[in-house]
Amino acid sequence: ESVGFIIEEQDIVGGLESRHNNANDDDTNSESANHRIFGRNRSRRRRKSEELPHQQSVKRFVRLHAPFELLLELAEKTRMKLPIEENRTSSVPKMPFDYLMSWLPFTQIDRTMFPPEQHYFLAEYDKTLRYRFEPLFDTLRGNSRDLYFTPAQRSRLVYDCLLRTPFDTTLESELEEQHVLHGTGDVKERRVLELEKIFTGSSTAAGIELLLRDQVYDDCYPLHAALLKRIEPHMIPSWIMMKGEHRNTFDRMKLWWYWSRISNVLKDQPINHIKDYFGEHVALYFSWLRWYIQMLILPCVLGLSVFFYGLWAMKHDVPTNDICHRLAHTVMCPRSHRQLWTLGEDCLYAKMAFLFDNKATVGYAAIVTVWSALFLPAWDVAEYQYQYEWDTFDLMDGNSGGGVNIDEPRPDFKRKVRTTRINPITGFVEQYMPARERCAKIASSFSVVAMMICLVLSFVFGVVLYRISIKATISSTHTPELVRRYSPYVASITGAFINLVVIIALSSLYERLAIWLTDYEIHRTEKDYENALTLKMFLFQFVNFYASIFYIAFIKPWFANPPGVESYKIGKYKTEECEASGCLAELSIQLLVILVGKQVINNLFEVGMVKFWTYFRRLLVHRNAFKQMRYRRHHTLHWYSKRPQEDDFMLERWTTTTLFYEYLELIIQYGFVTMFLVAFPLAPLCAFLNNIIEIRIDAHKFVCDVRRPVAKKVADIGIWRLIIAAISKLAILTNGLLIALTSDFVPRLVYQYSRSQNRTLTNYVNFTLSAYEINRLSATSLIKFNSTSTYCFYKDHRTPPWDSRPYQTNHDYYVIMVARLAFLIVFEHIVFVCLKLGEVLMPLLSKNVKQQIARKNFMVQTMHWGAHLYA
Amino acid sequence: ESVGFIIEEQDIVGGLESRHNNANDDDTNSESANHRIFGRNRSRRRRKSEELPHQQSVKRFVRLHAPFELLLELAEKTRMKLPIEENRTSSVPKMPFDYLMSWLPFTQIDRTMFPPEQHYFLAEYDKTLRYRFEPLFDTLRGNSRDLYFTPAQRSRLVYDCLLRTPFDTTLESELEEQHVLHGTGDVKERRVLELEKIFTGSSTAAGIELLLRDQVYDDCYPLHAALLKRIEPHMIPSWIMMKGEHRNTFDRMKLWWYWSRISNVLKDQPINHIKDYFGEHVALYFSWLRWYIQMLILPCVLGLSVFFYGLWAMKHDVPTNDICHRLAHTVMCPRSHRQLWTLGEDCLYAKMAFLFDNKATVGYAAIVTVWSALFLPAWDVAEYQYQYEWDTFDLMDGNSGGGVNIDEPRPDFKRKVRTTRINPITGFVEQYMPARERCAKIASSFSVVAMMICLVLSFVFGVVLYRISIKATISSTHTPELVRRYSPYVASITGAFINLVVIIALSSLYERLAIWLTDYEIHRTEKDYENALTLKMFLFQFVNFYASIFYIAFIKPWFANPPGVESYKIGKYKTEECEASGCLAELSIQLLVILVGKQVINNLFEVGMVKFWTYFRRLLVHRNAFKQMRYRRHHTLHWYSKRPQEDDFMLERWTTTTLFYEYLELIIQYGFVTMFLVAFPLAPLCAFLNNIIEIRIDAHKFVCDVRRPVAKKVADIGIWRLIIAAISKLAILTNGLLIALTSDFVPRLVYQYSRSQNRTLTNYVNFTLSAYEINRLSATSLIKFNSTSTYCFYKDHRTPPWDSRPYQTNHDYYVIMVARLAFLIVFEHIVFVCLKLGEVLMPLLSKNVKQQIARKNFMVQTMHWGAHLYA
Repeated sequence: ESVGFIIEEQDIVGGLESRHNNANDDDTNSESANHRIFGRNRSRRRRKSEELPHQQSVKRFVRLHAPFELLLELAEKTRMKLPIEENRTSSVPKMPFDYLMSWLPFTQIDRTMFPPEQHYFLAEYDKTLRYRFEPLFDTLRGNSRDLYFTPAQRSRLVYDCLLRTPFDTTLESELEEQHVLHGTGDVKERRVLELEKIFTGSSTAAGIELLLRDQVYDDCYPLHAALLKRIEPHMIPSWIMMKGEHRNTFDRMKLWWYWSRISNVLKDQPINHIKDYFGEHVALYFSWLRWYIQMLILPCVLGLSVFFYGLWAMKHDVPTNDICHRLAHTVMCPRSHRQLWTLGEDCLYAKMAFLFDNKATVGYAAIVTVWSALFLPAWDVAEYQYQYEWDTFDLMDGNSGGGVNIDEPRPDFKRKVRTTRINPITGFVEQYMPARERCAKIASSFSVVAMMICLVLSFVFGVVLYRISIKATISSTHTPELVRRYSPYVASITGAFINLVVIIALSSLYERLAIWLTDYEIHRTEKDYENALTLKMFLFQFVNFYASIFYIAFIKPWFANPPGVESYKIGKYKTEECEASGCLAELSIQLLVILVGKQVINNLFEVGMVKFWTYFRRLLVHRNAFKQMRYRRHHTLHWYSKRPQEDDFMLERWTTTTLFYEYLELIIQYGFVTMFLVAFPLAPLCAFLNNIIEIRIDAHKFVCDVRRPVAKKVADIGIWRLIIAAISKLAILTNGLLIALTSDFVPRLVYQYSRSQNRTLTNYVNFTLSAYEINRLSATSLIKFNSTSTYCFYKDHRTPPWDSRPYQTNHDYYVIMVARLAFLIVFEHIVFVCLKLGEVLMPLLSKNVKQQIARKNFMVQTMHWGAHLYA
Repeated sequence: ESVGFIIEEQDIVGGLESRHNNANDDDTNSESANHRIFGRNRSRRRRKSEELPHQQSVKRFVRLHAPFELLLELAEKTRMKLPIEENRTSSVPKMPFDYLMSWLPFTQIDRTMFPPEQHYFLAEYDKTLRYRFEPLFDTLRGNSRDLYFTPAQRSRLVYDCLLRTPFDTTLESELEEQHVLHGTGDVKERRVLELEKIFTGSSTAAGIELLLRDQVYDDCYPLHAALLKRIEPHMIPSWIMMKGEHRNTFDRMKLWWYWSRISNVLKDQPINHIKDYFGEHVALYFSWLRWYIQMLILPCVLGLSVFFYGLWAMKHDVPTNDICHRLAHTVMCPRSHRQLWTLGEDCLYAKMAFLFDNKATVGYAAIVTVWSALFLPAWDVAEYQYQYEWDTFDLMDGNSGGGVNIDEPRPDFKRKVRTTRINPITGFVEQYMPARERCAKIASSFSVVAMMICLVLSFVFGVVLYRISIKATISSTHTPELVRRYSPYVASITGAFINLVVIIALSSLYERLAIWLTDYEIHRTEKDYENALTLKMFLFQFVNFYASIFYIAFIKPWFANPPGVESYKIGKYKTEECEASGCLAELSIQLLVILVGKQVINNLFEVGMVKFWTYFRRLLVHRNAFKQMRYRRHHTLHWYSKRPQEDDFMLERWTTTTLFYEYLELIIQYGFVTMFLVAFPLAPLCAFLNNIIEIRIDAHKFVCDVRRPVAKKVADIGIWRLIIAAISKLAILTNGLLIALTSDFVPRLVYQYSRSQNRTLTNYVNFTLSAYEINRLSATSLIKFNSTSTYCFYKDHRTPPWDSRPYQTNHDYYVIMVARLAFLIVFEHIVFVCLKLGEVLMPLLSKNVKQQIARKNFMVQTMHWGAHLYA
């Protein structure tokens, strides 16, 4: 008989109060061993609540409720910070984007439903200073002490207690025996020492994790608040809604109605409410997302401008017009598998390229590269504000926001590792994996990752081959003119789609593999585990998503196959080369397909899979219970009399990777937005549109489809910060390279300012073309071509056939190269200087927050000085 | 009658104990107002100790001594951390370089004089936890409680108390009156509130700073320990030396004998002893210096190798030999003001250039650039260890290591500013300078700085003109052949010396100006003041020291004056251009003169000035007192009966800029070492030799010539960290540029791998030269030249006279340019990646320290959990 385990950290409604007091027991041992903490419940032992009628394979649930004084004691032990005084300073800091939001009234959330939070000064709770905290006990969040702690805080405190409350009864009974035998004096001291040990060293080896590990309990989760989708929150009279004792009752309904539904797509998010309901870790994710969306506005607007400027300027662009009209009949030398062709065939590509690669793009790229370089410093400003508001700014790594500051080993680690050592921190014996074994495991798992990455690269190569062979097929056989003409587009677009399918297939395959590999490595702490998984996932996904794009952007442009020169080949085929108007257009197509396709498919999956699994679980695993519940639900009169623990048990389990995938998706997207700006200026717009929907999808998932997590205090976004930093740095390089090497910007400039007489681009196209003697071409290339020209042209800077050393790279080539490299150097250094300036200047934006924190420290210090003066 | 004020924080010898108890008073008000802290001394009022015999203009001194219990109370108030338990863990971390030092036995300091420090776990002292601290009270540092606190801690605590103890008597008397009138109840509460206010808000407005400001007291300083130069520490029997109660007595003598004397030049420093005597801020300076010297070892060794490799390889270098022998008679076109000349004249320069600019240099530059990029991450590791050892790692900025966490305004600020506002942190009224006024002041003062920088630049320009005119004079008049031949060296060397003189003169002029300007800006806090001063000083000194070097390294190489082409001119003179073998040799001369000259002159000044001023003060200001003291000193039998406060008063005052100048000197030096490595690989060696002497000079200054500072806890080196980071970043650029553009490395490579048939440098010199028709030269250039050549040559890559477009930059020029730029890009990116890797990997070196800190946190948390269980 398996038993589900629930922390019920809030009263669902006032009417259930009496039952909760009964349900106030848990597994026997936890309460008895630590009598100072669970002392009040000591008399009520071994009472199981709510046993379901006699049925087989039915879950039993244990519900816990912690009374106020117990929570207060736990808060003191875990050094939780509690409010001492309202912060009435007028200069309560605002987020940088709040000003923007206040200009857009339609984004405002309903302030009657989500009243703005009052700010308080917090201090570590201390029994001796209780008089400073007491005035707020009854008034902080309603008219009852039971509402003093937020649901998130309650869940954290109770779970922390469960973690440390030992399951092992031997200690307890031994102590009690001694108590009988020897009287109080000596025993008291020993007991104190034993308790100290419980509360510090062996902590989780004794608590709920042990029971979960041994599968005595299936899971341990806080209960969701009630969610009745048929009742809309605004139908509930406000005097019920806002009344103190119901304060937490409608939390989930409010979130569901005003936050998670798609109709709120333009609305802001009630971040503080999310924090109170789910905890800081979930709230931080949504804050980050919110902030990211706000940051996207600038590149969105600029990207659109560049696009429209491109549309407008296309008509007036000399080189594009030359390709389409004036020089349309220029005879071009065969490329990869084409016959001789005329420049006019490249007209569409040239137009597309110009759309994204015009003068405005360079300015755009420069601005947005600086933007992406400043992304992280700017986030630090926002994060610092949240750290201040949620009082997480003094969480160091490893400090879990209270409690003893050691990293708890994962249950998996404890189950699998047999070697032990003496922990240098605590001095206790603990399981330990020797460095050699750990290295061996990591090496072997990373070789698998490397193999997978090679697999990805081989698929990319496969797609390249596909494109080459498609082009070859189309051009070699006697295909109709129309097909032949659009063959490059057909090849790129179908190639991109194949790529996308491969990417998504490999992704979902790899996800399982990565988890399996990380499990295999047996990491000691949750943090190590997450970091290892993140690194693996990110490395792979990075290569997976970006390999084909990097290939097109940076490798393909070098595969020029000028007719007279020995060229690169893959087997018997010549390598691909870009169209006459550059590689950028192809890159844009690739980006568009992958970025948009990925987002759409991902969102569909995310919505679909969760729903499907939840339904599946309900249907199969607990068919009986489910039926019974359904039956009961339809026959009860009061909505709140159904059993929330059973309902919640049907939902998807909250794991440490739940938030991880959400972050991963966004960070990959961030890479698309920043690294290939130049090729696809509309990427930020796509990202923006996707993300405002993403919020609602994720919100719905967390509110309706996943068990409620135990709240966790986090100060920052963890390892993702490093990854964002790396992407931002890389973006400087990729954007610089794209503009300098791939785009036509620099050659045009060089032409305009050093070759052209009147600083226009007249004859620029001629400048980019070199001549070749047609009669030196193989006969097959000349099929179906009737022209009297002696020379065909190709896109390169080489000496003409009549030169003393024909077909060598010419003077212009090197001049342009110098210009390209010089541009790259200047671009990178300017962006780098902006980045450094930003890193130095951005923190000045946090001045208000710093002041508030200083004020808080001042208040606390005053309290301490004061306390001793009162004594 | 002015009165000197002294904090005596230690008992000089046990025999003086009784006098100290008498001397236990200070200005009346401080002790009375804060009766809880100075309560014990309340009865002893208005007793002045040690009034000197009736003389005019004689200083009076007040000596303070704080008993143990008072210090303990202050420690609690200021949240000082005190030891609770010895750290017996075997894995006490070692500094990265300690292993190196342990291989060099001659560097070890005398462990009997400076026993290795025991490590303790520290926790904030709390009265209720006294039982955990008590066991160590009598045993920590000797057998007496009076030795429990180190001298540095005592000085900090007493000074903090003096800062906060109000001078204003009105409050006190008012309170006492009320006490009499209304009985205890109400008054007690009010008094408590008033005291709370004193201890938090208006703090320094009331304390010793006010008295110093009003010049009631001249200064307030802790007393030095005794220093008798005639007695050597090892002559004192060890049973006296090491006996508990004498523990602090011989501190200064030990430091003087075993640390500050020049004979200890190869010895390590007793950092912990320095910390205990002077405080963390001084110790951190010397730790930084120590660590910097250790870091210099690698570039020193490599630099020497490069130098010797250069000496050895010079004979075998083809281009150098070509210049000196094979092609020595090549006719060269006139440069700036020379006649036609032969390539052989450049032989010496070519040899010098090769000494520093050979193949080894590039590897050296790459390694040392990475080294300089990793300088800061590596220092962070070392700093983190000090932070752990001294328990400063949780000092945030603005947190002065205890006490209320607000930045105290400077006395100067309080005196000068009249506008007020309500402090958003404390809520009290305070003086405040409006942002507009502040900006105006800063803008005006920075315009002065900008003007000064222009002045510096004009001087640099002046030196350039000097060089040009010297060369012109020598070459135009009928100077002897020998002089004419060495004229470039004469010009560079004398130019560099003139530069050095100008630099030093401007430096000392600017020092005064910077202080005056910073005073004028009226900064609120000491930290703002220091930062403003640092920025000003550094900006100026940077330009001052580096302008001429930057000019030679990066601007001069572009002033090529090929004969056929229109050239750059300054007035009627052509601009300077470098010798045929490149600008590097000239750069080396410049660097050598400035770096070595600066160090020698600085050290002489530092030693001389302090001695001079101390002597001057003694002689003039206190002639009478001085005479009297001298008289007394010769007639006393016991060395400890002289009056230390008088002796110390003669010394130089400790100001906040005392350490500042020491840092500035070293950071400027660091710039020389890192930024121009390529030009002068021996720079690290010079720096190394200078610094091991610098330690002793500074040590002697602090031990013998400066008043003892009030100990200050600092966690890091402050704004210097930013400046080092900036220099390191800049060094990547300058070294990259030097190798890529200024040095001959890239052209040689290009020649070797693309022009030369057999991959040797045969004919490389020919490759670098271009021809010009002699008969097109003006007649004056041909004076005294008898040759039958039709062409003369110049160093450039241009088309020959017989080309269709003569005297244009040729193909080679662009190829080399592409190679140069590509090299720069690759070099920068590789170094940057190494830097980032280092930044990620370096902190792993701190693993042990992290563990120890975790263990400390664990102990403290255990104590807290335990404490309440005991209760």
